[in-house]
Amino acid sequence: MPVTTVGPITTVGVDADDTLWHNETLFRLTHKRFVELLAPYGDEARIEAELTQTEKRNLRLYGYGAKGFTLSMIETAMELTDSQVSIGVIRQILAAGREMLTEPVEPLPGVEKALAELSERYRLVLITKGDLLHQEQKLAASGLGDLFAAVEIVSEKDADTYRRVFARHGTGPEQAVMAGNSVKSDIIPALEAGAWAALIPYPLVWAHEAATAPKEHGRYGELASISELPAWVDGLT
Amino acid sequence: MPVTTVGPITTVGVDADDTLWHNETLFRLTHKRFVELLAPYGDEARIEAELTQTEKRNLRLYGYGAKGFTLSMIETAMELTDSQVSIGVIRQILAAGREMLTEPVEPLPGVEKALAELSERYRLVLITKGDLLHQEQKLAASGLGDLFAAVEIVSEKDADTYRRVFARHGTGPEQAVMAGNSVKSDIIPALEAGAWAALIPYPLVWAHEAATAPKEHGRYGELASISELPAWVDGLT
Repeated sequence: MPVTTVGPITTVGVDADDTLWHNETLFRLTHKRFVELLAPYGDEARIEAELTQTEKRNLRLYGYGAKGFTLSMIETAMELTDSQVSIGVIRQILAAGREMLTEPVEPLPGVEKALAELSERYRLVLITKGDLLHQEQKLAASGLGDLFAAVEIVSEKDADTYRRVFARHGTGPEQAVMAGNSVKSDIIPALEAGAWAALIPYPLVWAHEAATAPKEHGRYGELASISELPAWVDGLT
Repeated sequence: MPVTTVGPITTVGVDADDTLWHNETLFRLTHKRFVELLAPYGDEARIEAELTQTEKRNLRLYGYGAKGFTLSMIETAMELTDSQVSIGVIRQILAAGREMLTEPVEPLPGVEKALAELSERYRLVLITKGDLLHQEQKLAASGLGDLFAAVEIVSEKDADTYRRVFARHGTGPEQAVMAGNSVKSDIIPALEAGAWAALIPYPLVWAHEAATAPKEHGRYGELASISELPAWVDGLT
């Protein structure tokens, strides 16, 4: 497909979870379900805190995604109860994990239109963390796959990731925009790599991703929704 | 790094698990450990068969790798025992899964020398299935990372995968060799894509990967070890 470039930008990277479709909501619901399951064994705040801590501790080992999260829930259930948890609870945790992996995927409002507009003028690249197979399946289920020139599922989003991806699929970070809902993963490292970055806020932010937006940065923008992204990118000259 | 091309081949794809380092051995050991853990609950052959079946059924959902395998072990333990399995057993399954993810990685004999030779003359690309983060960690731990021009961790190895990877990182499948231990994943789809393919047998083959080698195919070779790969590739004219 021929790409007509407007301004200096050739490539737009877009995050997936909580930018194109709900994800954190599903994790929160599963957290809530976990707390309810474990409620007979202890205080709710403590259960929630322990799960968050186990998740964080295991990131290095399991990486991002629902499979590692399921293993972290099982581990937390055993730790919290001194191995007194019932097998029935473990069974329900496993089922909750499976449901996360098979949850229907529906694009958030405005996503399809915004991506269609962007894909006419820029090389669109999906850049996401998570389970390799699950992210591919979510993209296929979303019906958005054909709008992307390339898909990069990565284990971590740091400045080197953006340098590599925008060099491989575009004309370097200087002529690229990264758009997503996470200040920590989508904004700060993309700016560090030399790209532009547009924050598209999502109402919930995973504790591990919390960070302060670099509001004064010259290549940063904060949008009300993804619907504003095409015009924002077009306006970069 | 300048690449001096010998013959028509520009690019060599290499599988990782059981080609560069042991993997199936570790899965077999974990299978064995699982059977021992569950032995009080039933017949060993049945336990083994059930685990293999659960693994296969869950591939569509979990994909390849140790995290999905751990979840399959937990599921099998509960099914086999009608949820009567002890939490102690679940705890040991979780530990076995963690050990798979932290097992030291050591290149198989001859691997380092063969890759070093190949990397002087061809664009070397690692092409592997499995957990994204875990495969990256194994490559880093192996010390072989610098020999590869590119790394592709994929959710499935079919003909389209090889077409895409050899177009992206090389000069197309016709000028590429794929080398690995799996007839099903490394050989048949690579040949179908139009590439050359070299089987480097590993003593164990995962049940799911069993297939018959296309011994009569004009672009196929079966090597005794990876040490023979550089000369085999050089000889393709």
